[in-house]
Parts: sequence; C-alpha cells; structure tokens
Amino acid sequence: MTEEKFKPARRVAGQRQDVWSIINEAAAATPKQPVETNCDDIAFIGTELTVYIGYNPPQFVLDAAKQALDRVECNQYSPTKGRPRLKKAIADAYSPFFGRELNPETEVTITTGANEGMLSAFMAFIEPGDEVIIFEPFFDQYLSNIEMPGGVIRYVPMSPPKDGAERTSSAANWTIDWDVLESSFNEKTKMIVINTPHNPVGKVFSKEELQRIGDLCLKHNVLILSDEVYDRLYYVPFTRIATLSEELAKQTMVVGSGGKCFAATGWRVGWLCGPPELIKYVSAAHTRICYSSVSPLQESVAIGFEQADKVGYWDHSVKEMQGKIKRFCEVFDELGIPYSDPEGGYFVLANFAKVKVPDDYQFPDHVVNRPRDFKMAWFMIMELGIAAIPPTEFYTDQNTHIAEDWIRFAVCKNDDVLEDAKDRLRGLKTYMT
Amino acid sequence: MTEEKFKPARRVAGQRQDVWSIINEAAAATPKQPVETNCDDIAFIGTELTVYIGYNPPQFVLDAAKQALDRVECNQYSPTKGRPRLKKAIADAYSPFFGRELNPETEVTITTGANEGMLSAFMAFIEPGDEVIIFEPFFDQYLSNIEMPGGVIRYVPMSPPKDGAERTSSAANWTIDWDVLESSFNEKTKMIVINTPHNPVGKVFSKEELQRIGDLCLKHNVLILSDEVYDRLYYVPFTRIATLSEELAKQTMVVGSGGKCFAATGWRVGWLCGPPELIKYVSAAHTRICYSSVSPLQESVAIGFEQADKVGYWDHSVKEMQGKIKRFCEVFDELGIPYSDPEGGYFVLANFAKVKVPDDYQFPDHVVNRPRDFKMAWFMIMELGIAAIPPTEFYTDQNTHIAEDWIRFAVCKNDDVLEDAKDRLRGLKTYMT
Repeated sequence: MTEEKFKPARRVAGQRQDVWSIINEAAAATPKQPVETNCDDIAFIGTELTVYIGYNPPQFVLDAAKQALDRVECNQYSPTKGRPRLKKAIADAYSPFFGRELNPETEVTITTGANEGMLSAFMAFIEPGDEVIIFEPFFDQYLSNIEMPGGVIRYVPMSPPKDGAERTSSAANWTIDWDVLESSFNEKTKMIVINTPHNPVGKVFSKEELQRIGDLCLKHNVLILSDEVYDRLYYVPFTRIATLSEELAKQTMVVGSGGKCFAATGWRVGWLCGPPELIKYVSAAHTRICYSSVSPLQESVAIGFEQADKVGYWDHSVKEMQGKIKRFCEVFDELGIPYSDPEGGYFVLANFAKVKVPDDYQFPDHVVNRPRDFKMAWFMIMELGIAAIPPTEFYTDQNTHIAEDWIRFAVCKNDDVLEDAKDRLRGLKTYMT
Repeated sequence: MTEEKFKPARRVAGQRQDVWSIINEAAAATPKQPVETNCDDIAFIGTELTVYIGYNPPQFVLDAAKQALDRVECNQYSPTKGRPRLKKAIADAYSPFFGRELNPETEVTITTGANEGMLSAFMAFIEPGDEVIIFEPFFDQYLSNIEMPGGVIRYVPMSPPKDGAERTSSAANWTIDWDVLESSFNEKTKMIVINTPHNPVGKVFSKEELQRIGDLCLKHNVLILSDEVYDRLYYVPFTRIATLSEELAKQTMVVGSGGKCFAATGWRVGWLCGPPELIKYVSAAHTRICYSSVSPLQESVAIGFEQADKVGYWDHSVKEMQGKIKRFCEVFDELGIPYSDPEGGYFVLANFAKVKVPDDYQFPDHVVNRPRDFKMAWFMIMELGIAAIPPTEFYTDQNTHIAEDWIRFAVCKNDDVLEDAKDRLRGLKTYMT
C-alpha cells in the first residue's frame, strides 16, 4: 500500500539512464591523468568536450550583472513576462531581422532559459493527444517537454551524407527525409519544432528547406516552434523561417537564449518572440511554471544586447568560434577522420567508422547493449581521457543506425583545452584501420 | 479552422483577471502623488505594500554573487540537481533541525525558486485525477501547479478569530476547519500542502496542529509538501512537521527559498529536502522542466548559508522584521483597526470591517463584482495611494465571505516607506464608522 501510494507519476518514473549520466560516470571513473577542467560537478580527469562552455561571458556583460546586483529592483521579482528593459532590448535586436518593429510588450516574453521557454510553448498549446513533429537528431529535452502536457511525438530523421564515412563535407549535407516529413502531418498535428543552427549537426537550414517546411505548416495549419538559440553563431547565410512570409510569421514562435548569446549557459535567461496571440499564452504558461525569471541576469542580458553591436561582440564571437572549429578539426584532417564541417553553433560531428575498438574490450552492462557510438564514447574516456557525446542518444531506437558511427564534440573551450584534446585524439591512431 | 488549430491549451486559456494585474493596473492609474518605490515594472505612484521586498540582499551575499560571476563554472550549467556546494550548505543548515545529518546528494535538490520546486513535486507524484488538499487562504500559484499535471484540489478553509473585527489578536487564532479537513481525505488523496509560517495569515502552525494533520496523513498514507519558505522569519516557537516523527519524515518534502532567506526574491533559487525515494523524482521532474537552475546565484546562496550563522544574520533578520511589523502596526492601533499579529513571515492581515467606502463610489466593471476586499484595495489605491492585496483572491468563491473584511499588507519595506504608508493610512479616519 505504501509503495502504491507514493509511486511517482509516469512522466518521471523509470527512464533509461541518459547519456549525460553515463558519460559523467565514465568520466569520473577514467584512469587517465587529470588536466584542468572548468566543470566542477564531475570529477572528470581528462578533457571534457561534451557541453559546458569553457570560458566566461564577455566582461561587459559580467560587469552589467555585477552592477545589477547593487540595485534593489534587480534582486526582487521581475514581472512574469520579463523585465521591460530586456524585452525592449530583444525587440530592438530582432526588429532588423524581421524588417519591422517588434512590440516588446506583446511580441516578446522572457523565460527561464530557452528550455523552460520551449516547455512553456508546449504547455500553452498542446492538449493530450496533440501531435508534435521533431527532427532526429533532437535536443533530448524536447521529448519530456512535449510529453509533459500529453503531446505525441512524430519523428522525422535527418541523415548524414552517404559518403560521410569517407570524406569531410559541409553539415549542409545532412538531409531531411522529406517523405517521412510529409506523411507525418495529419489532423492531430499541432506543432513542429525546427532547430537552426542545428545541435548536434551544425547545419543551418537553407531558405529552400525552410520554405518547404513552412509550406507544409501553412497547408496543414501547424504552429512552428523555431529553436534558434545558436542564432548568433552562423558561418553561412542564416535564414529565419518567420521572415519568409507574413503568413509564416503569424504561426511561428522563435526561441532565443541569453546563455548561448553570451556564453553564460548557467544564467537561465531565454525568450520567445512571435505574434501577440501566441506569445500571450506562452507567457501565461511560463507564469504558471516558474512565476518569473532571474532578475539581475535578465538585466545584464539586456545590457549585453544594448552594447553588443557597439563593441563588435557578435562579429567577434563568430570569428572566435570559427577559429576554434578550425583549430580543433585539424586533428581530424591529420588522422583522416571525416567530419561534418559546421555551418553554425559549436558542435562538430566526426565520423568514427574507421576507428576500431578492440573486439575483446570490456564494457559495463549499461553500455554494452547501447549502439556503437556509446561504446566509442566510453572507450575514448577510458583510453584517451576525452569525453564526448554519442549522438544516437538523440535518435529513436529504430534510427540509431543512422548516427552510430558519429561522435559529437563541443569546441566551446579555451584553446589550450582544444590543443590538449587534439593530443589525446592522436592516440586514436593505434585503433584506426 | 485557423482559430481552432491555434487555440491554446485549456490550462492557460481564459483565466479570470488575477489580483496582481488588477492591483498593478489600479496602481498605475491612481491620481495620488508619487513617492520613491523600488518596483520598476509598474508605474505606481504611491506606496506599494503588496509583495516586493523593498531593500537589497545582505552585503555578504551580494559580494558572494559578484565573486561567483568571475568564475567560469559559476556561469555555465550547474548539475540538474544543483551545485554541490549549495546542496551541502543546505544539508548542513537543515541537519540540526532534523537531529541527524542530511545527505546532500540524495536528500536535497535545488530548484528554480520554491515555486518551480513545488511544481516539480506535483509533476513528480500527481497523475490526472489524484487529489491534493490545500488550505485556504492559499498561495495562488498552488492551483495552476497542481492542475498542470491533472491534479484535483480539495480546499480546506482557515478562518479568522470570531472577534477579528473587534480586536487584535495573534495570527495563531486563525483556525483550520478540522471537520472539512478530515472529510477531505479519501482514496484518491495523494498529497497535502501545508504552509508555515503562513502567507498571508502570518500563522505558525503549532506542534499540536501539525501532529493532528500528520496523523491524518499517516492514516491515509498521504504525501506532505511543507512549504516553509518563511522558515527563517518566526517570532514564536517554530515546528517542522517532518521533525515530529520518523514516519512523518518519510512522507514529507520540505520546500525552502533562497529568495525568502536572503531578501532576493528575483534570484529564483529554491530547494526541496526529503527522503531520497521522494527527492529523486522531484529532481527528475525539475530536470524536465528547467534542466538546471541559475548557477552564480546558487553559489551565492550557498555562501550565504555558510556565513549566515557566523555573522548573526538569521537573528538580525528576525529582529529587523519584528521591528518593521511593530512599526507598521502602530497605525492600526492608532486608528482602532484590528489586525492579526503575525507569528512569522512579513505579511500583516488587518480587518477593515470598520472602514466604509462611500455608497456611491464608482468601481470599474472588473472590480465591482468582486468581494468587498477587492473594492477596498481599489479604493485605497485611488484615494490614499497605497497598494495592498485583497486576500479573498486566495479563497475559493464560496469561501470569500471568510476573508472579505481583511486586507494584506507586506511590511518588507524600508522604514521610510512604512512611515509613508502609515501617513497615507491615517487618511482612512474619514471613512471609519
């Protein structure tokens, strides 16, 4: 009776061990030598290229945060929809992209990071049984966020180029299965999630691809949730789906992230922009979930936006990240490991088909039955002291074959960490065919 | 078709205008003279005694926040369950109350404010149709937080002392309707929410009351969510229900708030403590809702806890708040307006039965049909330039008669604001019978 009564809700019960805990656990257990890391939650002794940004936000944004902490109103509750200064700064920042002035009071709402912002959008519009289309590989939080309000997920796989195991090419060459996409729309479809620049693929969806997706959404009257958190890190022309037509703008909600814009993923400041008749319900959901978001860091993100153009921050960020990608990928060129050259963001997918783990290598039980990339990730932590992420975690079970030869690396690290990582990766030579 | 497709989910659609927007709108519209306020989201020109804390967090906690901002790992994602330093600081702080060492890894989880912490607890345990008992008056976010996972609310009213309109007495004299409470338990009851020190009543539940509630929960095998966010502000002996017996500890989750502890309501750092077999599911739900919580302010709250005893901060907070309550309530003694003398927290409920709004006073449509306290709150903003909260917002419609003579004031303000408020309240003399 006791067990019956206190049993957890299905939405939190009995999940498979997730990739983060597997990788962190492995990292904590590796016998490799320690190097400096910036991640204090795991006792990883190696080089961590999973998710944490390895450096600080820019000084002008940090200074703004410290100054905000001296102001009473920046330490107390913010309005549930966000601080007026931040809403205005975001409206001002997005207006040029949209070719018109956004109304900060009705077309912008602040959330507790982009993550809770997306949950708020699902909570605002998804009733039990409504369907949401997402692409594989997906950001793993989408799943629980869609399922929390009772949504049903339709998966549409993206695939790497056919010659991905032989040669390096642009991340643009990862392609949507359009047949699956078209057949995924039906009367229950309420929303589609797109993500560009894409994590983990590094693809920036082309105008043509977005138009084709958008046309399907117009035809089937489906809401678009456009996760554009890497929208300040693109290395090819970047199109926002909401700017393709007035019709598409009317059914699109754009997701942004202060953490991604300003290298401050722990600040939990995000936002959604979109038409007032959609945004008002996102705000209502956000109020019910978190009440309001963190005040002093909303203020500093606002100041960040106000000053970023003046100090050339956006251009600097792009150049710096491109430099890191180039620096890091040299080791793959050197080893003959093909990779997808990112068009945006800070993740690199490399193809490890040529790397062979010894047949008799011993994996723990919770890894041995996972796809090849999980084993590869485990092996690299243990043998090279380098932590990276297996991308099949971001595919459904039936589609893991698409990505099991790939490994995701995050290059948002200081250059000395990247160089250390390259040194460690050179150890792969022993295992290459 | 378009309207059909984009209609919001029921959980966010068509809510009655809430008390905060009514009061803020009124405050923005008052013709009264401006005074300095600390609230930048409303253009209130008067004295605001609703919810915002009117002063800064203590300097040692602000300094800790600024120092955290210089550290890379304090600006990036924290572990989903919270920063190890904060979990340890909280375990250390609560261990003396529980008479044993809490395990920071399994018995503490960090949330995005107490609000999202409580939502996480409901999301962790409530399936559609499960019942949750709450007391009236309630914190209004409880309702949407319980309903989001499909919970059904059972309300149990608390009532003021019968002579509340005639004389001032302790907030202890607000009493639970025990018959209603006992009859509210049934086979579907999954959880009860208690709140002590209580907002808005200011009552600290006695050991006997908690034991009686606890016995019912043991008998019916019901989880206890104990909202103790004002647990550092009590002026009579304070008992925590989880400390009454080992059995009760096993089914109780305690909610705490860094914002309330350190006068930083905009920081969104909260936590839940409880048995590992409950906390693990709260953590899982929190991960799905917000992923992780704000890093630099978790660190500063941790440092706040580490240093608070050494600098005598808790004692100082209590003395200071008691001083504010005494200072403010003088005006009610002077006017002959009875009030409930708070046993904890920073809210004062005063009985306005003797104050008569002129019969021909014109109220706007959205106020005229609300209970007497809404009209009184509107009248006070317009005629005295003082904003306070009508407590019937925290009752169900059928029980508004219990509280419609009362008004809630927040005394967490600088002394000059309190003195200004007293001056304004003296204007009530004209309207007293």
